[in-house]
Amino acid sequence: MERGGTYSAGDEEGTDLNKLIPDLPDGPLTQYRARASFNWKKMKAYLDPPEIIAFMNRLYNFMETDPVFQYLDGDANLEEQRYVTLLRNKKLNNAKLFADEELLMDFRKAIATPSVFGGHNWSLAARMGLLRGFIISAILGLGTERHNTVVDAFINHEGVAYGATLGGYDWSFATKKFLSQDFFILGILGQGSANHVRYIEAMQRQEIGGCFCLTEISHGTNSRGLRTQARYDPKTESFILHTPDFEAAKCWSGNLGKTASHGLVFAQLYTPDGICQGLHCFLVPIRNPKTLVTYPGVTIVDMGHKIGLNGIDNGLMMFDHYAIPRENLLNRTGDVTPEGVYETPYKDPNKRFGASLGNLSTGRVSIIGFGVVHMKKSLAIAVRYSAVRKQFGPAEEELPVIEYPLQQWRLFPHIAATYALDNFTKAFNKLFVNFRLEMFDASDKGRIALYGQEIHALSSAGKPVSGWSAQATIQECREACGGHGYLRCAGFGYLRDDNDANCTYEGDNNVLLQQTSNWLIGVWKKRSEVSAVYPMGTVDYVDQGDHILGCTWKTSPIDEDSTNQELVRVCKDSLRWLVCWLCQRGSSEIKRHTAAGLDAFTVRNNIQVYLAHTLSLVYVKQVILSWFDESIHEAEASLQPVLYRLCALYGLTQLEKLLPQLVEGGLVQDGNTIFMVHFHIKRLCGDLLPDAVALVDVFAPPDFFIHSALGNADGMVYQHLKREIFTAPGALTRSKHWQEMSYRSPASKL
Amino acid sequence: MERGGTYSAGDEEGTDLNKLIPDLPDGPLTQYRARASFNWKKMKAYLDPPEIIAFMNRLYNFMETDPVFQYLDGDANLEEQRYVTLLRNKKLNNAKLFADEELLMDFRKAIATPSVFGGHNWSLAARMGLLRGFIISAILGLGTERHNTVVDAFINHEGVAYGATLGGYDWSFATKKFLSQDFFILGILGQGSANHVRYIEAMQRQEIGGCFCLTEISHGTNSRGLRTQARYDPKTESFILHTPDFEAAKCWSGNLGKTASHGLVFAQLYTPDGICQGLHCFLVPIRNPKTLVTYPGVTIVDMGHKIGLNGIDNGLMMFDHYAIPRENLLNRTGDVTPEGVYETPYKDPNKRFGASLGNLSTGRVSIIGFGVVHMKKSLAIAVRYSAVRKQFGPAEEELPVIEYPLQQWRLFPHIAATYALDNFTKAFNKLFVNFRLEMFDASDKGRIALYGQEIHALSSAGKPVSGWSAQATIQECREACGGHGYLRCAGFGYLRDDNDANCTYEGDNNVLLQQTSNWLIGVWKKRSEVSAVYPMGTVDYVDQGDHILGCTWKTSPIDEDSTNQELVRVCKDSLRWLVCWLCQRGSSEIKRHTAAGLDAFTVRNNIQVYLAHTLSLVYVKQVILSWFDESIHEAEASLQPVLYRLCALYGLTQLEKLLPQLVEGGLVQDGNTIFMVHFHIKRLCGDLLPDAVALVDVFAPPDFFIHSALGNADGMVYQHLKREIFTAPGALTRSKHWQEMSYRSPASKL
Repeated sequence: MERGGTYSAGDEEGTDLNKLIPDLPDGPLTQYRARASFNWKKMKAYLDPPEIIAFMNRLYNFMETDPVFQYLDGDANLEEQRYVTLLRNKKLNNAKLFADEELLMDFRKAIATPSVFGGHNWSLAARMGLLRGFIISAILGLGTERHNTVVDAFINHEGVAYGATLGGYDWSFATKKFLSQDFFILGILGQGSANHVRYIEAMQRQEIGGCFCLTEISHGTNSRGLRTQARYDPKTESFILHTPDFEAAKCWSGNLGKTASHGLVFAQLYTPDGICQGLHCFLVPIRNPKTLVTYPGVTIVDMGHKIGLNGIDNGLMMFDHYAIPRENLLNRTGDVTPEGVYETPYKDPNKRFGASLGNLSTGRVSIIGFGVVHMKKSLAIAVRYSAVRKQFGPAEEELPVIEYPLQQWRLFPHIAATYALDNFTKAFNKLFVNFRLEMFDASDKGRIALYGQEIHALSSAGKPVSGWSAQATIQECREACGGHGYLRCAGFGYLRDDNDANCTYEGDNNVLLQQTSNWLIGVWKKRSEVSAVYPMGTVDYVDQGDHILGCTWKTSPIDEDSTNQELVRVCKDSLRWLVCWLCQRGSSEIKRHTAAGLDAFTVRNNIQVYLAHTLSLVYVKQVILSWFDESIHEAEASLQPVLYRLCALYGLTQLEKLLPQLVEGGLVQDGNTIFMVHFHIKRLCGDLLPDAVALVDVFAPPDFFIHSALGNADGMVYQHLKREIFTAPGALTRSKHWQEMSYRSPASKL
Repeated sequence: MERGGTYSAGDEEGTDLNKLIPDLPDGPLTQYRARASFNWKKMKAYLDPPEIIAFMNRLYNFMETDPVFQYLDGDANLEEQRYVTLLRNKKLNNAKLFADEELLMDFRKAIATPSVFGGHNWSLAARMGLLRGFIISAILGLGTERHNTVVDAFINHEGVAYGATLGGYDWSFATKKFLSQDFFILGILGQGSANHVRYIEAMQRQEIGGCFCLTEISHGTNSRGLRTQARYDPKTESFILHTPDFEAAKCWSGNLGKTASHGLVFAQLYTPDGICQGLHCFLVPIRNPKTLVTYPGVTIVDMGHKIGLNGIDNGLMMFDHYAIPRENLLNRTGDVTPEGVYETPYKDPNKRFGASLGNLSTGRVSIIGFGVVHMKKSLAIAVRYSAVRKQFGPAEEELPVIEYPLQQWRLFPHIAATYALDNFTKAFNKLFVNFRLEMFDASDKGRIALYGQEIHALSSAGKPVSGWSAQATIQECREACGGHGYLRCAGFGYLRDDNDANCTYEGDNNVLLQQTSNWLIGVWKKRSEVSAVYPMGTVDYVDQGDHILGCTWKTSPIDEDSTNQELVRVCKDSLRWLVCWLCQRGSSEIKRHTAAGLDAFTVRNNIQVYLAHTLSLVYVKQVILSWFDESIHEAEASLQPVLYRLCALYGLTQLEKLLPQLVEGGLVQDGNTIFMVHFHIKRLCGDLLPDAVALVDVFAPPDFFIHSALGNADGMVYQHLKREIFTAPGALTRSKHWQEMSYRSPASKL
């Protein structure tokens, strides 16, 4: 009963799964589902354990059956998009989706078992009922720094779950709901003291609303260059906030445009002696919470339409000598006495700066998961449509376009990437939560420091890979659906527009990659000492670098008969080889440029292209592939063959892009290796044909969340398309302006 | 006075250019403009001859100063987008932008001089005053087929000019204005007889409005599979049009949704004996032109929101036993007698089918130019922004981000591609018009047939390359502008959404590529006889294929000192080598599969991935590169160095993507070749830094048409951004829904 066609497995586990996972409706896709080599419900349970499926179902059902979450018909202007996002936000804030006892149990379970903790087991409901109402008030009542860390961990971990649930519905909504407020809370926790906890509590009670204001019009990436001023005035015991010009206006802050009553504002702190003490964070009342009128001295401007995420009111803000009380400085990293003397526990301003921004960088761990949600939705649409859409054929009967090798080659590598990145997201989050827990009980400070560096490096390369993978997937899926894919009701426009932001916020992709390569080249330099000690093991092979680089493939290491597991091994080996080679070359380039008298800044910029930039991407892809490979061992035997196909296809399609440098570096010395890479990619695409529909069934959210006329589980593409087009407002009526559109028609009928 | 800093050249030509091309405003970009190695006005005149610049200026000025062409503030719903597009359409229809004599002169000049004819010298105004009003009525009064060909040529050629002018403004508008009507006219000319010319004349007089209805819901690419029926009824001497089900509904037709009064409808013609005579085209009254009410028996549904191009009312249409007169069959390729007997000059139904669709395939020649317009606008925005936007630096002062090698590497290859594709568009159109003229006076039918095949092959690969190049350019430019690039007012959202359609309409890119490779493999088979005789010379090297394939590079053919011209030569050689190698391999794969008993259809599908698909792309890139190289010889000496830099960069960045197959095939045998390719790409990016701003100045349309807060010629990025954000409707006001958004604020102020 292993084969996918039998969607009602008879064994005990199967019975449970059958309750959790409803059978999919019969229709044009049934024939493809029947051909699957695996039981799709077991695969679904492999990706997300049953309790998580149940939890997500609960959320899905709540939203799908509530009118406020229904999609708007026709046009929605900016005001309407923001308004409906707000209504949805309120609805979830007020819904009691969980009994307190259940939440408490979940919470303890999560603390106790990092393997659950690291998966998709945290959620909207946990935040609603527990995090804000219970944990934060309880823990922050104690007010010690080490407890706050736990709160951070929860908040961040939750980000992954909302990606898979709310984000699957509407990113504007999800982002507005969590990201802005998360940052507000994280900022207070990271920077403030017990004095400031009342703001978080007030936010929990919906008495105020926060936003996070770091970026300025002319400074984003280089946050040290921020120019908003906070001058301390000892006479009034207040800070005078001032924006010197438009370029120093705070901008892009979510919720700021129309809603927030309080901002967490980063500004350069000046003491009365005129000395700039560097960047600090202030809690700033910006609008009357009752009337939402801005306070005099504060100018807030809505940033208007964006490419996507238009449910969020991003705003910009300028201060005109605006006074706030001294106590509104979040004073964990530095404080000013009533008299105006600056005090800090940090001697080194650089370390203070790092401490002040470091715990805000964790958002990108969550964003890695966002891209995966986009990939799942896009592929569900494109693969289902391709299995229904027929065009041409060898005889009278036309073929579904999924039967064409070119269509398979366009789509299936993205299925493989989705499985690989889904596993990477979960594995990384698990390790990330472990890291937070270790910080909580840190007996080994050195290990924590290494752990933190490794997480920073991996997330800085993981976010770009996820965002760009999603971008490529969405675009290919859009084109693979032809003309109908260009309709708004196909859904790709929203996906592309929303995903686009992932490449920029929380660090521009290209800038982030430099963080990773800087670290890697540092690891390479001290590889014999350090590479094995990094806790996540992502560079544990680097100490063998010289040995690895000694390897060359004079003839192809693979042939037509290579197994998928062998292919995975070869891909891992070559990615590791390339990491080492690029580290080595990067190091020698740095030496060469430095010897030529260039400063460190210029040297770093000169080694990006074809070197450091590539290095970071190869490093993280090696991790993604290795972790995917490892995870397959934990799957039950019936799932392993198809998972190895996906793993091999992911590895080979990544390897393919790197072939020039593998040849340049001398690992690949035989053109036949390239032929074999192409050969196996084509073979794997063909081998995956019977499984493709079931593979997207596994990760597809419910139809309501896919929200595409082309991607429903019943495969009734044309019926859905017809309904969608016919029922759009005004679809069958004349234009309101028909009198101006009509023609000077002639007397005789033409 | 050759250098670009001096924007007022003193020589005679320069004086003229200074009148035609206003100096650009001083500002932050001035320092970069001063560093340019060439006179940008001369370069502009090299891309477009002065008379074309003057002509485009006239159009630009007319539109920029007319209120109806001003952009809408804030939200515009679907109805409003369609309405404003219509108003703009009317405005241009009614404007007398050209005196008749001037148009007549232009027209003759154009006929006489293919070098002008093939450039950007045809226009909106020519269509408005001349084409519809004069040529068509005059030539069609004669009603012979050979004259119609000339009309086709004009209509099509015009498509390129509108790409560069109207398309630079608003694609919805441009597409609505021309494409739908063009196809209507082309269809009538291609299929109809003198009897039908009155429809064209009525359209010129704005008495009726047309649309072109080919695609159906379940058949687009495979147009032979269309299922709309037209059964002839001899009793009433009428055709009964019927749509058997929703899947056979006509769809995607531009203008159909709300405006057209007449459709050109393709349907399967059934004679009273029940025999299907194949696809024919019918002139179908669908709406009352005065009231725009649909006729009973016709159901028209607006297709609603699309990803882009929402100013166009695409529609779908179903017939319910709807009768039209016998005479409404466009009868050039086949007719039915009053009694119901089918008559055709074509014996072979395949040839009839080809004749009926062949002359509609020319739209893709125009679309090649559309992508270039998108590239020009995107790069103008991103390069100007990058030269103004500062972030980080080696010392206190921050650097403009264009100074970073990574940013150069991300953007400058797209500048090179834009110059290469701009030249390709113009050169191809010139040859295409020549082809149409040769048809007009065809003494050599064999040559015409070869010419037609070559044009079909080149356009079928050229459209994909242009659409995808534009896609890559727009996306990279979007990301290169960071967060502000995500604002709608940056302009990239529109560009991406509009360009997206280019990858699908007029033939899906991936399907089109098969047309090209089928032809190439055919040419390879008979290479000794045919390759030199194709009139455009795009395969003139193929007869040397065996000799070419004998070449291998045991060591790198380039070193650090290679000149740009040498690099271009090496790139051309390697692309030619790869065309031959892929042809050879494709041919042997076909033999192998066929010998294994596979049918021709399956064989063709099996050789697409890494073979036929790649072949088509390499073929057209070789042509693009070669034609660019050739065109540089015609430029004046002062422009040649920078043009060779661009040409070499284009060649190397295309070559780079093909390195794996060059290694696999054995041309590249030395890893150092790959190093050298990367080395020179990096070098060229650095070499182009002083020229980058001037290079985009050359092709940037006026600010009004770029329509981006980030891309204005004055470089005052932040001032424009501020104005744009502050003046958006509602930017500074509370939300209409503020009462529901406000908080339960506490008694004491937080």
